[in-house]
Amino acid sequence: MSYFREHIAAMEGYEPGEQPTDLSVIKLNTNENPYPPSPRVLEAIAAVTPEQLRRYPDPMGTRFRDVAAEVFKVDREQVLCGNGMDELLNMTVRAFSGPEAAMAYPTPTYTLYAVLANIQASIVREVPFPDDFSLPMDGLVAARGRVTYLANPNSPSGTYVPVAQVAELADRLDGVLCVDEAYVDFARENCMELARTRRNVLVMRTMSKGYSLAGIRFGFAIGHPDLIRGLRKLKDSYNVDAVAIAVAAAALADRDYHEQTRQAVISERERLARELQRLGLPCLPSQSNFLLACARKPDARTLYESLKGRGILIRYFSSPRVDDKVRITVGTPQQNDALLAALKEIVS
Amino acid sequence: MSYFREHIAAMEGYEPGEQPTDLSVIKLNTNENPYPPSPRVLEAIAAVTPEQLRRYPDPMGTRFRDVAAEVFKVDREQVLCGNGMDELLNMTVRAFSGPEAAMAYPTPTYTLYAVLANIQASIVREVPFPDDFSLPMDGLVAARGRVTYLANPNSPSGTYVPVAQVAELADRLDGVLCVDEAYVDFARENCMELARTRRNVLVMRTMSKGYSLAGIRFGFAIGHPDLIRGLRKLKDSYNVDAVAIAVAAAALADRDYHEQTRQAVISERERLARELQRLGLPCLPSQSNFLLACARKPDARTLYESLKGRGILIRYFSSPRVDDKVRITVGTPQQNDALLAALKEIVS
Repeated sequence: MSYFREHIAAMEGYEPGEQPTDLSVIKLNTNENPYPPSPRVLEAIAAVTPEQLRRYPDPMGTRFRDVAAEVFKVDREQVLCGNGMDELLNMTVRAFSGPEAAMAYPTPTYTLYAVLANIQASIVREVPFPDDFSLPMDGLVAARGRVTYLANPNSPSGTYVPVAQVAELADRLDGVLCVDEAYVDFARENCMELARTRRNVLVMRTMSKGYSLAGIRFGFAIGHPDLIRGLRKLKDSYNVDAVAIAVAAAALADRDYHEQTRQAVISERERLARELQRLGLPCLPSQSNFLLACARKPDARTLYESLKGRGILIRYFSSPRVDDKVRITVGTPQQNDALLAALKEIVS
Repeated sequence: MSYFREHIAAMEGYEPGEQPTDLSVIKLNTNENPYPPSPRVLEAIAAVTPEQLRRYPDPMGTRFRDVAAEVFKVDREQVLCGNGMDELLNMTVRAFSGPEAAMAYPTPTYTLYAVLANIQASIVREVPFPDDFSLPMDGLVAARGRVTYLANPNSPSGTYVPVAQVAELADRLDGVLCVDEAYVDFARENCMELARTRRNVLVMRTMSKGYSLAGIRFGFAIGHPDLIRGLRKLKDSYNVDAVAIAVAAAALADRDYHEQTRQAVISERERLARELQRLGLPCLPSQSNFLLACARKPDARTLYESLKGRGILIRYFSSPRVDDKVRITVGTPQQNDALLAALKEIVS
């Protein structure tokens, strides 16, 4: 007999990618930014006082909200901070979906959505992406989710749905549209304008990728004040800590540094895609900081394992439609060179 | 029309205590420890590297779990880290209770339990404490919660239920017993032995109070490996950040400092209780770092407001059974003297 609720006892948890403790491993498996965070971040950490640690933090993270309001040209009341974007996704699933209210999303995508739905015993309507990962607009509208998730850029494909199409989707949906922009810092455009103008759009962001702060858990959602006010009720009282607020605010404010690392990653992504193609590993067009490469000889799992044996970690998913591919995070030029050299040995 | 689920749209969120930005306010309202955290904590913060910030943290916070395993004489697999104890409470509510599974707890107590139940649309069975806040054992057993919460010491009463009685309760319950030991660092005994020996007991702790780390969000649960394994499925992948793990591990390991501040708070609590009694404000016997004082002239709300006007913040709850009392956090000797001097003016 289990003490847990039946559907919890029966389900599987989310399996995060490997986090090796050996720092010599070239780690291209969980889409961290290869560059260190802004120097302002270290200044913010050096400025932490014992009093900041002793006292409860600001429940709403206003210091960060004010920076976000300025950067994204929204009102402070439109910003909600979270302990990583995962916490915000978790809150939206509980706020909008359940055994009586469906959630919908195109697949394959971030596998956490399905795990969160299982925890919540939500009705789930998965709509397959076509092979080119363009938006299955009609399918998503027909799914009639009380909440619809769209990772854009999508993971693990890296592909991007143009803003105009997302706007049309938002307007055709009766429920809320959560645009998961975890990777948008590496894309040509973004959906922030929809968060400003639509009552049913939440744009979700993270400091993990574009700002090199995966170690600090910090994400934020931007949307209509009514949506933010409602979500706030589900938030743990003090969900983001004082150090994280200070660090995230400092990183977000440093626009120049952000632009520099962003451009460096984009330029390496384009080079890596060309080189992978040349090695017989064609990639889907990516607007993110990773590439989904199609593996033929050897197959994807063997490729993953051969690289791991050489101290290079990439991501292999054993699920349908992606089990013939590997996901590779864009690293520094040196890391990418090491990857390409290893691949040259493996595929030839 | 609301986009939110019906019960979410209808409910109220949790209202945290005031967090004034004016640092000159004497803040005795949210039970922070009046002493700064261990010097080891500042060393841990100074040692944070850009690489720690850039990479995802260890999903399970093993560095902390290893310290906790040693301090509390349990196995690493019996420890689960959380983004504050609130996150762990949130996880247990979702794991064990719902529209089909009741949760039970004695009242008045930490008001977050009711909020979490509302978010989850859980069946709730509240069992009133008698006036002396002794354990309503038969009532809790009869409530047949799939999960039962016991804040011990309780808030806002500060009172303590002896371990032998908690053990008996655990043995008589069919479901899980979560012992919320947020304040136990200031008590004579604790229920950790029950977490070691019972299959249905979870002991929940926080670094906020006993370790002066409310600014960092860090809590942990200790219990049978089966309970910990099940709860892990509900955990956000990276729920505690790299800085918080390092800081919490450093604070927990510094046993001497912990013992010093703990004794200082306990000794001030006893002095403050005697002085409040002398001023006509008798307190319930407290095993925590706060006192619940009964106010007569002026009434509790007026007392709270008069102190606020003098730059001293205490806590007033407008709910039944506690609206004739005020909750006062034990401060430093200087803060307590200032409080007593102000009270002398107000009550005389």
